[in-house]
Amino acid sequence: MSTLSTLDTLLDGDRFWADVEALAQIGALSPKGIRRLTLDEHDNRARLWLVEQGRALGCKAYHDDLGNVFLRREGQDPSLAPLLIGSHLDSQPAAGIHDGALGVLAGLAVLRTLHEQGIEHRRSIDVVSWTNEEGARFAPGTSGSSWFAGRRDIETIRAGRDDEGTGFGEALDACLALLEARDVTLCPRPFVPHAFLELHIEQGPVLESLGVPVCAVNGIQGVNWYEVEVTGQANHAGTTPPDARRDAMLGAHAFIGELRKLTEGRDDDLRFTIGKFSLAPDSVNTIAERARFTIDMRHPDQAMLDALDSEFLALAERQWEGCEVSLKVTSQVAPVAFDNALLEVVEQSVRQYAPSAPTLVSGAFHDAIHIAHVCPTAMLFTPCRAGISHHPDEHVERADAEVAVRALAHAVEQLLMTRIDFHDTDH
Amino acid sequence: MSTLSTLDTLLDGDRFWADVEALAQIGALSPKGIRRLTLDEHDNRARLWLVEQGRALGCKAYHDDLGNVFLRREGQDPSLAPLLIGSHLDSQPAAGIHDGALGVLAGLAVLRTLHEQGIEHRRSIDVVSWTNEEGARFAPGTSGSSWFAGRRDIETIRAGRDDEGTGFGEALDACLALLEARDVTLCPRPFVPHAFLELHIEQGPVLESLGVPVCAVNGIQGVNWYEVEVTGQANHAGTTPPDARRDAMLGAHAFIGELRKLTEGRDDDLRFTIGKFSLAPDSVNTIAERARFTIDMRHPDQAMLDALDSEFLALAERQWEGCEVSLKVTSQVAPVAFDNALLEVVEQSVRQYAPSAPTLVSGAFHDAIHIAHVCPTAMLFTPCRAGISHHPDEHVERADAEVAVRALAHAVEQLLMTRIDFHDTDH
Repeated sequence: MSTLSTLDTLLDGDRFWADVEALAQIGALSPKGIRRLTLDEHDNRARLWLVEQGRALGCKAYHDDLGNVFLRREGQDPSLAPLLIGSHLDSQPAAGIHDGALGVLAGLAVLRTLHEQGIEHRRSIDVVSWTNEEGARFAPGTSGSSWFAGRRDIETIRAGRDDEGTGFGEALDACLALLEARDVTLCPRPFVPHAFLELHIEQGPVLESLGVPVCAVNGIQGVNWYEVEVTGQANHAGTTPPDARRDAMLGAHAFIGELRKLTEGRDDDLRFTIGKFSLAPDSVNTIAERARFTIDMRHPDQAMLDALDSEFLALAERQWEGCEVSLKVTSQVAPVAFDNALLEVVEQSVRQYAPSAPTLVSGAFHDAIHIAHVCPTAMLFTPCRAGISHHPDEHVERADAEVAVRALAHAVEQLLMTRIDFHDTDH
Repeated sequence: MSTLSTLDTLLDGDRFWADVEALAQIGALSPKGIRRLTLDEHDNRARLWLVEQGRALGCKAYHDDLGNVFLRREGQDPSLAPLLIGSHLDSQPAAGIHDGALGVLAGLAVLRTLHEQGIEHRRSIDVVSWTNEEGARFAPGTSGSSWFAGRRDIETIRAGRDDEGTGFGEALDACLALLEARDVTLCPRPFVPHAFLELHIEQGPVLESLGVPVCAVNGIQGVNWYEVEVTGQANHAGTTPPDARRDAMLGAHAFIGELRKLTEGRDDDLRFTIGKFSLAPDSVNTIAERARFTIDMRHPDQAMLDALDSEFLALAERQWEGCEVSLKVTSQVAPVAFDNALLEVVEQSVRQYAPSAPTLVSGAFHDAIHIAHVCPTAMLFTPCRAGISHHPDEHVERADAEVAVRALAHAVEQLLMTRIDFHDTDH
C-alpha cells in the first residue's frame, strides 16, 4: 500500500486512450463517430462495458432507479460521503466519440491508477455515468442527473416518449433488467456526494484558439427549451386560392421571422436555435395543417431569458398567416455558478499543467448543472477542434485529453488528501 | 336487348351512392375520411373490390404493368378503340372519400346501367382506376396514367421510394401478385382509347358559389414540383457563437423568404406551396446540418412557370446564411387544353342538367393531363363544400354527384351513338 502522491503523474495515459478507443467501438458509425441514443442497445452495452471495467478493478457496480451507473472504490471510512467523478455515455444521433465519454473515462483512469498503485484513501470514490444527458431521443436531457439531484420527478421522466412513440419508462425498464441480470445492485435512493467533478470537451472555439489543453469552468448558462405548434388548415395545393389559405408552413415562417428579429444581434452571449421542424400532413401537394418546431435558447443571465420568454409568449398571442400559435416550455434550467472553494482547487490543479489557462463559463448544459444543487461541483474543459461537437467530425487531440485527465487526477488527489471547507457541507 | 336511349335517366342513383359508401369503408379513418396510400393494403383492396364489382356485371378485369386496373364491357365490334372512363382510387394521407373515387364509380354506374338494361353497343367501354394519382406516398403522382400515355418510363417509376425507404417497384410487384392471384389478366401494353372522360370533385370554391352541380373542364394548369436542399454544418446549439454557424434552418428560412417575395401577389392564378419540410439531424440542441423541402407551383401559362423557374435557379446560386442551396425539379407537367370536339359533347350534356354552368380550367392535376396526349380527353367537375379537399372534411352533396354522373352518362351515350370527328384520330 503506497500513500497517495502524484496521482496525476502515475496515471497511465496510454491505458486511458485505449479506453477512449475501446468505448468508441460501441455504437460506432462509419467512417467515424458514434450513435448511442439513450437506452438503445449501444447505450446499454456501454453501461455494461463500464461495469466490467470497474469490476476488474475491484470496484462495486450499482445503479439507481434512473439507470445511472456507479462504480464505487470503497474508502477506508465508508461513513464519508463519496467523491463523485463522471459524465454521460449517451450521444446525439450522429456524434463524436468524446462528448460525455471523456468525463466517464477520466474517472475510470483515476480508479485504474488507484488500483494499480494499491493506493488507499479514506473517502470512497464513485465514477458515474448519468442517464440521458443529451435529450436527443427523449427530451429534455439530463434526466439521470436532474432526478438524482431531486430536481425532476421520476414519473414525469418515465412518461416521456421518443419520436416513434416508445416510452422512456419502457426503455428504462429494459435497461434496468439488463443491469440486474448482471448483478448490478440497485442503490435505493440518491445520496449526497462530497463533491462532483466533470471533465468535458469545450464544444466551443476558445481553448483551441489560445492553445490551452485544459481549463476550469466556473458555471453554466441557463437554458429554455420550447415546443411551438402552428395550426392552420390543410387543403389542395393546386386549387386553393391564396386568400382562402391558412398555411401552417407560412404561419411558422412568419412567426420565426419575428423570433429572429427579437434574438439576432441582441446580445453576444445569447444562443437561439431551431433544431427540429416538421409539417403535417407533410405531403408535397397539400397545404400544411400543422407545423411543429423546437427552440433552444441560452444565456448566462436569468433576466434575459425571462424577458425573451415574455416576448415570445406575447408574439404567440397573435395569428400568423391566419394560423394559431401555441408556445410551450418543455425545459427550463436556471444559470448556475459553481462552488468557489472547489473551483479554486480545480484552478490550482489546472495551473500545474496550463499556467495561462482562463476560467470559462459553459455555453452547454451538462449533468453538473443539476449536481451543483446537491454538492460542490466543478468542471474542467479540454479543447475540441474548431469547437465542433454533436457531429462525427468532433476531434480531440490526444495530448490535450491526457493533460486534462492528469489535471483532474491532481484535483482528485487534493480533495482526498485535504479537508476543504465547502460552503454548504461539512463532510 | 334494348336500344340505347337516355342512358343518363336509366342510371340508378341509389346504387351509385351505395357504391360511394361501400368504397368509403376501404381505408376508412375515424370519424370520417379515408387513407388509401398508393399500393398499401387499402389501395390494393380497393382494386380488388372494383374487380369484383365489374365481374358481377360480366365485365372482364385486366391490369397492366403499372397496376392500372381496367373493367371492360365488350362492344359488338372489338376492333374499335374502347371508350375509357375513370379516375383513381388512391388518396392523400388523410383525405375525403370522393377525390378520385367519384370518377371511377361514375364509370362503374355506367357499366351497371348498360348491364341491367341489357344495352349493347358497338364500341367497348373500359372503366379504369389509375395507379398513384396523388403522389403522396411515392412522388411524383400520376404514375399509372403518365406511363400509360408514354410520358414517363417504368424504370424511373419503379425506382421511386417512399419516406420509409420502401421501393415503388417492390410495392407494385406485391400488388400485381395479388391481382394475378385473382386471375386479373395482364394486358401486355397500353392501348389508345377512343376518348377518355374523367369526373372529379372541383377542389375549388367556384361551382358551390354559383350553385351549379356540374360543369365541363377545358384544360389543366401546368405544375412544377421541386425538391430543395439547404446544406450547412451541424454543431452545438449552446456553445456555437452565431457568427460561427451555418444553420440550414436559418438558410432555408431566408431562402423561403425570397421565394415568397417572388411569388406572393404576383398573379391571381399562381399557386405556390411548401408542403413537406424536414431537418437533419432534427435534434432540439443541434444546429441543423440540412433542411429539405418541396415546392408545388402551378399556373395555366407555361411562360410564367418558366420565368419563375429561372428566378428560383438564380436564387439557388447564392449562399443563404452561409449555406448552400440545391434546387431540383422533380416533376414538370405542361398546361393542357382538352380536345375541342369532345369538350363540346361534354358541354352539351352538362347543359341538359345545368344550363348556366361555366366551363372551368382545373387548378389541380389529374390523370387526364397525361391521357390528353394520347386521345381526346375531357373532364367534368362537381362541387365540394368550401373547396375543401385532401382532408377528411371534404364533402359532396349527394344530389350534385348524382347529377354529375348523369351528365357523364349522357355524354357517354352521345359518344357511343354518334361518330364524332376528333381532330387527331379516326376510329
